[in-house]
Amino acid sequence: MMQEKVRELLEKVSARKLSVEEALRQMKIEPYEQLSCARVDHHRALRCGFPEVIFCQGKRPEDITEIARAILRKSSCLLATRADEAAFRAVKKAHRKAEYHRRARCVTVIKKKPEPQPGQILVICAGTADIPVAEEARVTLEMFGHGCQTIYDAGVSGIHRLLSDSDKISAADCVVVVAGMEGALASVVGGLADCPVIAVPTSVGYGASFGGLAPLLTMLNSCAAGVAVVNIDNGFGAGFLAARIARRKCAG
Amino acid sequence: MMQEKVRELLEKVSARKLSVEEALRQMKIEPYEQLSCARVDHHRALRCGFPEVIFCQGKRPEDITEIARAILRKSSCLLATRADEAAFRAVKKAHRKAEYHRRARCVTVIKKKPEPQPGQILVICAGTADIPVAEEARVTLEMFGHGCQTIYDAGVSGIHRLLSDSDKISAADCVVVVAGMEGALASVVGGLADCPVIAVPTSVGYGASFGGLAPLLTMLNSCAAGVAVVNIDNGFGAGFLAARIARRKCAG
Amino acid sequence: MMQEKVRELLEKVSARKLSVEEALRQMKIEPYEQLSCARVDHHRALRCGFPEVIFCQGKRPEDITEIARAILRKSSCLLATRADEAAFRAVKKAHRKAEYHRRARCVTVIKKKPEPQPGQILVICAGTADIPVAEEARVTLEMFGHGCQTIYDAGVSGIHRLLSDSDKISAADCVVVVAGMEGALASVVGGLADCPVIAVPTSVGYGASFGGLAPLLTMLNSCAAGVAVVNIDNGFGAGFLAARIARRKCAG
Amino acid sequence: MMQEKVRELLEKVSARKLSVEEALRQMKIEPYEQLSCARVDHHRALRCGFPEVIFCQGKRPEDITEIARAILRKSSCLLATRADEAAFRAVKKAHRKAEYHRRARCVTVIKKKPEPQPGQILVICAGTADIPVAEEARVTLEMFGHGCQTIYDAGVSGIHRLLSDSDKISAADCVVVVAGMEGALASVVGGLADCPVIAVPTSVGYGASFGGLAPLLTMLNSCAAGVAVVNIDNGFGAGFLAARIARRKCAG
Amino acid sequence: MMQEKVRELLEKVSARKLSVEEALRQMKIEPYEQLSCARVDHHRALRCGFPEVIFCQGKRPEDITEIARAILRKSSCLLATRADEAAFRAVKKAHRKAEYHRRARCVTVIKKKPEPQPGQILVICAGTADIPVAEEARVTLEMFGHGCQTIYDAGVSGIHRLLSDSDKISAADCVVVVAGMEGALASVVGGLADCPVIAVPTSVGYGASFGGLAPLLTMLNSCAAGVAVVNIDNGFGAGFLAARIARRKCAG
Amino acid sequence: MMQEKVRELLEKVSARKLSVEEALRQMKIEPYEQLSCARVDHHRALRCGFPEVIFCQGKRPEDITEIARAILRKSSCLLATRADEAAFRAVKKAHRKAEYHRRARCVTVIKKKPEPQPGQILVICAGTADIPVAEEARVTLEMFGHGCQTIYDAGVSGIHRLLSDSDKISAADCVVVVAGMEGALASVVGGLADCPVIAVPTSVGYGASFGGLAPLLTMLNSCAAGVAVVNIDNGFGAGFLAARIARRKCAG
Amino acid sequence: MMQEKVRELLEKVSARKLSVEEALRQMKIEPYEQLSCARVDHHRALRCGFPEVIFCQGKRPEDITEIARAILRKSSCLLATRADEAAFRAVKKAHRKAEYHRRARCVTVIKKKPEPQPGQILVICAGTADIPVAEEARVTLEMFGHGCQTIYDAGVSGIHRLLSDSDKISAADCVVVVAGMEGALASVVGGLADCPVIAVPTSVGYGASFGGLAPLLTMLNSCAAGVAVVNIDNGFGAGFLAARIARRKCAG
Amino acid sequence: MMQEKVRELLEKVSARKLSVEEALRQMKIEPYEQLSCARVDHHRALRCGFPEVIFCQGKRPEDITEIARAILRKSSCLLATRADEAAFRAVKKAHRKAEYHRRARCVTVIKKKPEPQPGQILVICAGTADIPVAEEARVTLEMFGHGCQTIYDAGVSGIHRLLSDSDKISAADCVVVVAGMEGALASVVGGLADCPVIAVPTSVGYGASFGGLAPLLTMLNSCAAGVAVVNIDNGFGAGFLAARIARRKCAG
Repeated sequence: MMQEKVRELLEKVSARKLSVEEALRQMKIEPYEQLSCARVDHHRALRCGFPEVIFCQGKRPEDITEIARAILRKSSCLLATRADEAAFRAVKKAHRKAEYHRRARCVTVIKKKPEPQPGQILVICAGTADIPVAEEARVTLEMFGHGCQTIYDAGVSGIHRLLSDSDKISAADCVVVVAGMEGALASVVGGLADCPVIAVPTSVGYGASFGGLAPLLTMLNSCAAGVAVVNIDNGFGAGFLAARIARRKCAG
Repeated sequence: MMQEKVRELLEKVSARKLSVEEALRQMKIEPYEQLSCARVDHHRALRCGFPEVIFCQGKRPEDITEIARAILRKSSCLLATRADEAAFRAVKKAHRKAEYHRRARCVTVIKKKPEPQPGQILVICAGTADIPVAEEARVTLEMFGHGCQTIYDAGVSGIHRLLSDSDKISAADCVVVVAGMEGALASVVGGLADCPVIAVPTSVGYGASFGGLAPLLTMLNSCAAGVAVVNIDNGFGAGFLAARIARRKCAG
Repeated sequence: MMQEKVRELLEKVSARKLSVEEALRQMKIEPYEQLSCARVDHHRALRCGFPEVIFCQGKRPEDITEIARAILRKSSCLLATRADEAAFRAVKKAHRKAEYHRRARCVTVIKKKPEPQPGQILVICAGTADIPVAEEARVTLEMFGHGCQTIYDAGVSGIHRLLSDSDKISAADCVVVVAGMEGALASVVGGLADCPVIAVPTSVGYGASFGGLAPLLTMLNSCAAGVAVVNIDNGFGAGFLAARIARRKCAG
Repeated sequence: MMQEKVRELLEKVSARKLSVEEALRQMKIEPYEQLSCARVDHHRALRCGFPEVIFCQGKRPEDITEIARAILRKSSCLLATRADEAAFRAVKKAHRKAEYHRRARCVTVIKKKPEPQPGQILVICAGTADIPVAEEARVTLEMFGHGCQTIYDAGVSGIHRLLSDSDKISAADCVVVVAGMEGALASVVGGLADCPVIAVPTSVGYGASFGGLAPLLTMLNSCAAGVAVVNIDNGFGAGFLAARIARRKCAG
Repeated sequence: MMQEKVRELLEKVSARKLSVEEALRQMKIEPYEQLSCARVDHHRALRCGFPEVIFCQGKRPEDITEIARAILRKSSCLLATRADEAAFRAVKKAHRKAEYHRRARCVTVIKKKPEPQPGQILVICAGTADIPVAEEARVTLEMFGHGCQTIYDAGVSGIHRLLSDSDKISAADCVVVVAGMEGALASVVGGLADCPVIAVPTSVGYGASFGGLAPLLTMLNSCAAGVAVVNIDNGFGAGFLAARIARRKCAG
Repeated sequence: MMQEKVRELLEKVSARKLSVEEALRQMKIEPYEQLSCARVDHHRALRCGFPEVIFCQGKRPEDITEIARAILRKSSCLLATRADEAAFRAVKKAHRKAEYHRRARCVTVIKKKPEPQPGQILVICAGTADIPVAEEARVTLEMFGHGCQTIYDAGVSGIHRLLSDSDKISAADCVVVVAGMEGALASVVGGLADCPVIAVPTSVGYGASFGGLAPLLTMLNSCAAGVAVVNIDNGFGAGFLAARIARRKCAG
Repeated sequence: MMQEKVRELLEKVSARKLSVEEALRQMKIEPYEQLSCARVDHHRALRCGFPEVIFCQGKRPEDITEIARAILRKSSCLLATRADEAAFRAVKKAHRKAEYHRRARCVTVIKKKPEPQPGQILVICAGTADIPVAEEARVTLEMFGHGCQTIYDAGVSGIHRLLSDSDKISAADCVVVVAGMEGALASVVGGLADCPVIAVPTSVGYGASFGGLAPLLTMLNSCAAGVAVVNIDNGFGAGFLAARIARRKCAG
Repeated sequence: MMQEKVRELLEKVSARKLSVEEALRQMKIEPYEQLSCARVDHHRALRCGFPEVIFCQGKRPEDITEIARAILRKSSCLLATRADEAAFRAVKKAHRKAEYHRRARCVTVIKKKPEPQPGQILVICAGTADIPVAEEARVTLEMFGHGCQTIYDAGVSGIHRLLSDSDKISAADCVVVVAGMEGALASVVGGLADCPVIAVPTSVGYGASFGGLAPLLTMLNSCAAGVAVVNIDNGFGAGFLAARIARRKCAG
């Protein structure tokens, strides 16, 4: 695409419809014009079919409102993660359709519903305390047009619960596994699934969990092949990647 | 499938073609018969279309020979990873077609070539010292029938090298990024790709690399969404997962 | 018992069968005579019914021979752990009946077979590379007169294998779970067992296993209650504790 | 038991008292019906004779009330750990008999007193700041019908204090040792006891205690065999395991 | 200089203008008189041409006011870092010209503007959340008389944004790179720049960022030579060092 | 002493002035009577000439009051460390003479002034933020009757300041060095002193200080022999040990 | 420069001296031709005036020879770091002028001596065991045409040694400080110098040095501003950066 | 003393027996002449009455011989620590009286026996594997003229052994406690002793000992006041410090 743009410019230069100076300026500026802070993401959204995302943590409400407005000028939807009540109000100020998913700590603005995507995605979480991270993944997937099934509270200490859902696991195109404490769920699911498994360690737990280090290491060392790991508590990242994987199917 | 087997048994019981005791024995044993150590993998191979794999490190040559023989009785191919010369000879003893991929530290036995799979997979590595891990991913992919392109020695300190290959990155269905030292390559590729990116930290480096901890943390914290991480030096795991992701496409 | 000894001394003093000085000397020395380096363990063996143990790692062969001789003068059996070939020869020099359990890296000397103990102990390990540690536990248990059942190569990625043995788990009085890599096996077994579970993380694995840190943290964070953890690779400790737990039954 | 259930179904099918479809449905559902989130625990409680437990930390009051109600519909008692005042009120809302053990940070509901269990359990803690964790163990044990003795403030820097209680240690069927700071108490008790010792590191301390890492490592490296470790601050886990060990005695 | 002072004293002694005792006293005291707490910094300021700096974190407001007053008695400007509102008021109390740079968390007092320094310094930061640290560097540089250019929000996941500014990077005499999360920006800039690059990891991020450990390790392991690292969040240190490096140019 | 007590008892038994039972009871109880929680410390105080100490952190005010009262019944002075305002009020409730050393976060009660001890102790700290820990050491020393000199704010970045005080260092019988950040001061002082140096790392700092880990490691690795380290922020421990070292002198 | 190349192409296209296709091909290839593995560095060398560098560790001799040959075809000098005897022979095979700096573990090939550069660089190391890393920095600097002064074995425990060289420190344009163990030297030098200080932690030491972690943290937390840190044992990186800093002076 | 030297110079200058230039040169050189590498230690030895020490690890034999010769030219004795057989031969080459203490891994050269020092020092170690470190402390003490008593193999798991030696502990002027694994011995001894206790963690152990980290943290967190810690395996440092502490007594 960039290639084509350059060819076009070259042809104009060759046809003397464009001066060297102007071509140079455009070659220098064009690809970059859309690359300044806010703009690059429009470009990305267009190319990828994915909505814009704001990571709210550590951002001031006024910045959130401003970024949200900028995004919504060009994009039909918006996802804001790690959003507390103040962040929600900040997005609300930018657009009245802002909706707060409290458990997922996400705010969404959907001006136009995303097109439904094919691909079955399954989100499993180990304990009730892992639900917020699982929900962040689920909301992310929905923003991308993916419905997803969920199995919550499926810890490995009651392995039968999980096995009773092995059909869902078999049917999935991608499974997101969210687990804190010891994170063993990822290995068990990895052994049952034959699709890609994305593991999300959570900071749920105490003591030797060391803020999610324990499940992180567990998941990285998973004896089940086919499991990859994202950052601790990164439900969004898991959802985003799951959507990318599922899209493979439709793109084929 | 398991369901069907049980239904079949039940119908035989109902038809009195099978005694309760025998049905019970079969229900207990059958699903498990193939689950004793070596056998479970045949099952897995059949179900997944993936060859058997031996992780050689820490295994005695005699064990490797025995496991290799067991696998090759039922499977048309075999992959042995983390294989030194002794492990190679051990596999060779099991099958004369054993081939040693020295750089990848892998042994393969291919009795029948795997069917070519669709899906473009790209393996990129940062430095020449990362090549063994990248090669492990490549050999794994080939065993699964996936050809793959490689871009080796594409460190971020010479970012232009990588950008010159951005077309390959755009065209890929899945990118495997292998990098030691600071592992920043994953983030840069993650920003260029719109397909799933699997990052493999390597233990290449020294000092504050702490045996691969540095690139591992880098990759987990990647600012580019769509990147997931496997264990340090786990080229096989990355190749395996990439194959699973690419298969999505054909399965659709 | 110590109480009784003191009472005895006091009564002798009161009866003037013992001088104050001598009583004082005995009170000072007696309880301690058996407490000098080698002797304390005789005392311990008598009290606990457990044989003597030598941790060979870091000990010089000549020391091992000497300690082994000292133990075998008073004890009917001996266990030497972390024993390489040199350590085996050192024990052999002390007693011709020394037997080398190569996989378990243990040497045993059994002058008189220990009395069989009640209590079903089950040793489960995740991968073939964990077998040496599991064997150390098994040999330890046998030295204490406990037969034990073993389930080797029962990783959670093939959960069905483990479930097929759930009867054995239900029947056990104590389960020792040995696992490296991610150590998730402990949680799964912990969820199936209703007896005490002793988890032994192993240093098996690579990369983010960090020498056994990953399974150690996993096991400490196990979501299944009833699981306790011993040091990395400490098969002896697990066997020792399992024997203590199983003895509860017979002592009741 | 599960076996028996299946045999029963098979016999009904053989006797044509049950259709294949219905048997299939029951085999699929039955073992799982009781395995959905809340229900699985009823099953567990029945099987193990242990009451239900809610880990309150990170749970919302409304969830606690709901879970408590669900448990108390079928169970005669309830234990809620890591409960602050709000959690207490939430349980109180579910049942008026809720009692708050402030030091232990536990709430208990006892509709019917558990049957007294045999087996002497001793809970020792090192400093006054370790008492909450020790109390969590004690309350847990009481819920399971075990009385237990306690020795609080028995730090190793005043070793005589501990030795004066060596009779209690000798008499115990299981000792729970709770210690923060350097956690050396576990090794000393481990040397005095000939029953299983469960060590609980606490996050009590400062500086190089690193949130309990110091006593955790100390306890894992204990030179006294027969010591196993649970997670930092996990008084409940220690109590639970101690009860399981003590029950061995009565089960014999 | 110190040498000269001593020579002077010696000459006075030789000329008997100074007694041995007095010379001894002066030699002992003189070099140190200006070295007591507050004074040493005046000395430093004079020698280095750099203003005084107060690190406010952990200092009480009354101490800040007092130190600020002491500095401003002899110095024409003052920089206070890690300053919250209370610290600002404390400095304000010392001098009415105190100005609060909220984003940079810095207070400056400029009685006389510093002389403009030559040397182009460029401050780049990865995400909006890294801006406070970048601003601390910028304010520091301004206090030293260096204007500096800034490129904010230039994360490597959108590498084109950065490349579009490669001219600025080429033109710089020193680049300060501020980045949290994975910190890969330092390597990319290091590959583009041919001037010294000072990398500042920030504690921005979550999960496996471990309070800035991830970008710290990334930056230390940078595959691009010419990159050095300062402490996590240490914008002041980076600015200070950049000023020192830039001054090289003018000093030559 | 304990020896003597036993001899005395034995002699009484021998002289039939004491029954065996009574002697037994006394031998069992006596040495332990004073060993129950509060009492053991009286014993210690008497033996060591040191006052009682309460570590307030994590203790409830009512407990502090009670312990303070118990101590002050038998002891002429009391030291309470890590005391906030509430802890101060709690001690005040126990004794009206309670005095609060705010910077040191200590409360002292001095019913009778301790006898002045010989031995010059010098407390040096690196930065103003380290003063609270240094003050804790100083107050501790004063409670033990040791006057001490202090050099505060003597960081190694202005090494001349420290050198100007090298006479004080030479004259000291023990030096306590308190430093956060990089803790290099301990090595420098260790090189100047020829008396024992006790290093106290503090949690002062940020970023890669990791709560005091950095200065802790620095001090442990000190290239200057004669330096020993206590826990992070443990001013009391350093003062206590310094007093013990200084007492050597007088005891000789 | 790249800009100029593009302008030139555009002008040729405008002048129809170059077809669009050809221009496109050149724009695509040209900037990249020199970007394949070996070539990119020629480009870099030309731009930066710095010789090529091979990091030998983990590279096979045959690869080293090949890379060395490739570099020496276009470059007048070559530096190979982390070179053992085998690596030296490998470079020697590529060029007969290869010289081995055993202590620095470096090989240099100097076909034409680099032009002498202005700027005084001082390399200081703490202990004799740190000399190899210091020498790596020195050899690197010499390859870049910088003479440098060295002060070896200047540990802070004998601070006078260092102070006696304070004139050299004052005169330097950049100081490289190499230190293992506790690394305090960087802070002391940082306090004496008013030029940029580059600190290199080394893995020299034992125990709590943790492979260089201790001096690394020390240096990052240095209380002296103006100190930046490179990776553990990275003498080359320090030399490279020092050269860049010193070049500032001449470039001005 | 340095003071005196300067006064002397000043008086000569005042008396015109010395030119200003010459005084300046001497003041500049004199204090420093003895400060070049080898010489500074002579000075130190004279001042401190302590022999010279060579840390052999990482030093080449030829360097060891040279340093040993330099020391022995001026000193009557020499201690070389961390000495393997090669290091021993290197010292032997410097002086024929070199003696190798194999267990302590030390070489000593005693041309003239050190004067016996007062002060009872007790070295206690936990296990037989800790003996080398304990011996390093003992040899060090002997070099300084201190006899010392030793209690080896006194682990806390057999606490009675230690208590039987409580008289020795009470009588000591300083106790050195050497322990690996969990290091609890330091706390127990710290509770028994009323003299300074120097704790030396050792790298003895395995698994979660993490190279001595476990006992290091244990000792730093010791609940017994009066304990200070030196680096892992640093027997020399402990002996050196113990000698300094004991010397206090005689100096008084």
